[in-house]
Amino acid sequence: MPPYYPDQPRWVDIAESLKPTLRVTEALPRGLVEPVADAAAFQGWRMRPVEGLAALPTKALGAGEGFTLDFGEHVVGTFRMKLKAVGLAQDAPVRIKFIFAEVPAETAEPFDPYPGQLSRAWLQDEVVNVDVLPCTLRLPRRYAFRYVKIEVLATSPCFRVALADFACDTVTSADPAAVAPPSEALPPEFQELDRVSLRTLRNCMLTVFEDGPKRDRRLWLGDLRLQALTNYASFRNFALVKRCLYLFAGLAREDGLVASCVYEVPEPAIGHCFILDYAALFGPALLDYAEASGDWAAARELWPVALRQMDFVLAHVGADGLFVDPGTWWIFIDWHAGLEKTVSMHGLAVYALRRMLALAKALSEHCGTAAPGGAERQSHTHTAEGGGATGLASFPALIERMTVAARKAWRDASGLFASGTKRQISWASQAWMVLGGVLSPTEGAAALKALPGRADAIPPAGPYLYHHVVEAMLACGLRDEAVALLQSYWGGMLRAGATTFFEVYDPADDRLSPYRSPLINSYCHAWSCTPAYFIRKGFAPPPATRTATRT
Amino acid sequence: MPPYYPDQPRWVDIAESLKPTLRVTEALPRGLVEPVADAAAFQGWRMRPVEGLAALPTKALGAGEGFTLDFGEHVVGTFRMKLKAVGLAQDAPVRIKFIFAEVPAETAEPFDPYPGQLSRAWLQDEVVNVDVLPCTLRLPRRYAFRYVKIEVLATSPCFRVALADFACDTVTSADPAAVAPPSEALPPEFQELDRVSLRTLRNCMLTVFEDGPKRDRRLWLGDLRLQALTNYASFRNFALVKRCLYLFAGLAREDGLVASCVYEVPEPAIGHCFILDYAALFGPALLDYAEASGDWAAARELWPVALRQMDFVLAHVGADGLFVDPGTWWIFIDWHAGLEKTVSMHGLAVYALRRMLALAKALSEHCGTAAPGGAERQSHTHTAEGGGATGLASFPALIERMTVAARKAWRDASGLFASGTKRQISWASQAWMVLGGVLSPTEGAAALKALPGRADAIPPAGPYLYHHVVEAMLACGLRDEAVALLQSYWGGMLRAGATTFFEVYDPADDRLSPYRSPLINSYCHAWSCTPAYFIRKGFAPPPATRTATRT
Repeated sequence: MPPYYPDQPRWVDIAESLKPTLRVTEALPRGLVEPVADAAAFQGWRMRPVEGLAALPTKALGAGEGFTLDFGEHVVGTFRMKLKAVGLAQDAPVRIKFIFAEVPAETAEPFDPYPGQLSRAWLQDEVVNVDVLPCTLRLPRRYAFRYVKIEVLATSPCFRVALADFACDTVTSADPAAVAPPSEALPPEFQELDRVSLRTLRNCMLTVFEDGPKRDRRLWLGDLRLQALTNYASFRNFALVKRCLYLFAGLAREDGLVASCVYEVPEPAIGHCFILDYAALFGPALLDYAEASGDWAAARELWPVALRQMDFVLAHVGADGLFVDPGTWWIFIDWHAGLEKTVSMHGLAVYALRRMLALAKALSEHCGTAAPGGAERQSHTHTAEGGGATGLASFPALIERMTVAARKAWRDASGLFASGTKRQISWASQAWMVLGGVLSPTEGAAALKALPGRADAIPPAGPYLYHHVVEAMLACGLRDEAVALLQSYWGGMLRAGATTFFEVYDPADDRLSPYRSPLINSYCHAWSCTPAYFIRKGFAPPPATRTATRT
Repeated sequence: MPPYYPDQPRWVDIAESLKPTLRVTEALPRGLVEPVADAAAFQGWRMRPVEGLAALPTKALGAGEGFTLDFGEHVVGTFRMKLKAVGLAQDAPVRIKFIFAEVPAETAEPFDPYPGQLSRAWLQDEVVNVDVLPCTLRLPRRYAFRYVKIEVLATSPCFRVALADFACDTVTSADPAAVAPPSEALPPEFQELDRVSLRTLRNCMLTVFEDGPKRDRRLWLGDLRLQALTNYASFRNFALVKRCLYLFAGLAREDGLVASCVYEVPEPAIGHCFILDYAALFGPALLDYAEASGDWAAARELWPVALRQMDFVLAHVGADGLFVDPGTWWIFIDWHAGLEKTVSMHGLAVYALRRMLALAKALSEHCGTAAPGGAERQSHTHTAEGGGATGLASFPALIERMTVAARKAWRDASGLFASGTKRQISWASQAWMVLGGVLSPTEGAAALKALPGRADAIPPAGPYLYHHVVEAMLACGLRDEAVALLQSYWGGMLRAGATTFFEVYDPADDRLSPYRSPLINSYCHAWSCTPAYFIRKGFAPPPATRTATRT
């Protein structure tokens, strides 16, 4: 079957031509630690510093002996160390176990039996046999870690082993010289939020924007959008964003839908996750890119892809202007298991429509031609989900219809949006109704300020939605509340010991995992890196609402 | 401290210049098997062939699934296979466990907890994580195995893994083209003894004659001597023997003692095992080499080393002509834990003295000069253990004195030698008294034939001593008994399923291990390879007794 967009193969070629060479920088361990059970500590484990790093090169270890290196901060790269035999002779191989850990629990709790849903192979442990000492052992795989737990499993009665010169050859496509340090005028807490955000981003910036360097190590559209925003405010690696956008476009499904994740290796390939809200945000991400980079030519080229994504969303907006969850799509919004997503998705769709109009307008200004409204698509014979009735020209009226309908159907007496037949109140619903401009800033501010007092309101379960709540607060002028949320939520991760921000963080349950094992959670995760974006933008409101119509 | 022999550094250089390039030959698995508990089978495990090797390339395996390859025979080399993902996408690494097994028990019994005395790291298991499929996975280490047990530990819900194109790149310094196949005139059992012997030898012939390619993977003097004998009758790789002799000589201890093992890597180095009977056999091994290769120049060059070893033995022969175990030396002779070794060591010493005389005589004939009798040693200031009173000229009288004294002191009324204060009767004592010529062939034949009827006689515990018993039988004209012993002992290994001969084999206890775990035993072991030597020599008597004096 031919690709939906005739240029897809060329787009993949463009993406591949933009594949960066990674910067390699040596990182050294700063000390030794050992985990101590501590109910007050994150996940029940506190790292206690112990003496001995300097003495390791002359310390002879036998079976069952070991230690845990602390690199002081989260790093991503390959690991190496030197080994030598101490004793009469190395008359047998050495067997050593490694655990690369992002958080203390990974060094303290057994990996097996593994109850998690994702692959056990993501857990970063290795058993290595080394035949000939002395040597420099370079483990071939890339790891994401702060701690390295090393245990000698076997030597022999004739010798022990001494280990030295530990190092991580870190890799990233982020250029640290491109970004200024956090302003010293900022309170220390915000300087630290900024540093940890940028370390998170840097450690996810490899040959694509990875979601997490421990897991899943690949490009996700939702994560990309937030990484890109933070990148524009810091490292400004536009080529990497372009590469990623072209990968999504070049690898679109045969009906034009962009996947929610794509693979780089062994060759660029579509992932088989399709998330409706992620697809809807392709256009907004494209506009973000063009605005930041000035690369309107790319935005013009990928415009048909952005426009096509709206078909998949609008197919589920009825004549009454209300989004109806068809039940056949993965709608993400947030990890919360009980979240009813109809209202959130509706608000997100209106947000995307507004951003598509802004993109069309900008393309008209920058490229001198109006963005095509769907005419190109008419040359395709594919049956588009939702038909071709949703051309660009219809968007303004559609925004208005969806706004009016949602306010009428779902907004309750308290001014909050209620989702689904059970009329569920959630932070997600209010945030996306604000971001979509369905609520005015004044209404949105009232709604958002009401949420903490509503015990029945479903709170966010993870950083991705917390980001959108902060954005919504800023859109409503709730700067103090937004700042306080950064302090309480991302600041909570800092107080938990984070040197990079987590994939999953629930202040009320630090062992929460969407995968049935907190050990498999990723503790350096792209979508969590946006405090630096907010800080470096001076807590300015997000773009969509600047152009939002009021109803 | 300077080396004992001024030429030692040069001898190591010579040895290194003789380091062979290994032949690499691809070996493929012949089928799949699974271990079945069977009390009648070797170590309680029988391999049952199962279908499916041809179907593996398209069989998608998930966590907990696997199979066991059977290469049909013992091989030594590196292992490779191809992996591909089957399913939507490879969205996680693959985690795979490998066990390389010489015998079925290694695939059926857990390695841990490990009760053995030698390093756990010798057990050939690996856990490997592979990030990107498809790929060819080449495990970097060398293994010794017939079976490869492969278990997929983790894939993901999105994919399974298919494995194909398994191969072992076998390595050896033996040239198979240099050796004729066993004579078809031989009974099939002897053809098989020959084939398995030569496979054992081939798989131990690497850049030195290793004792066992699974463990200890290094050069031992006792093993070398028997490997060399079989090599002379088959592959005739004289350079490899020369390399090994020069390594022992070049790496001798500061008092001139040759170690019982040496290391090749990371650089040639002395091992710290010193076995008195092994040292005494350096000279006989040197004579064997010169006789087989015609390289009398090497024998002349290393003569001082051979002669010096006798000092260490003769230091413990009293004025009465009797060897006294000083209790400070490792005397090996055999693995049997209860063996009293005084008589065996005495007989071995006489054997070595006779072979040293033969070597001196041959050097005189071939090199035109008499072998020096110790004059060279007088230039050294080292205090030799036992002084310098044991010059070559004294050897004939010493042989006579030791012969008479032993017969008088230790030979009991039944004509058998009894060792130690408890007057222990053993196969070892009789065999070495025969090989030393202390017993005449007639006397020896009577003694050896009496042993099976003596329930109190300590039998051999392993192939190394069984070899010397066969040699002793041949020296006494007990050809039928020698042949029968090959059939019963090495033939027993064949009936146990051996495709290479074992380090340890006790027909009465197939789980016997000198190291408290039969899993750590080596099942392709150099000192067990001599049936081919006996067969290809036509069951001729060993050399020492051809020149033995009769008393």
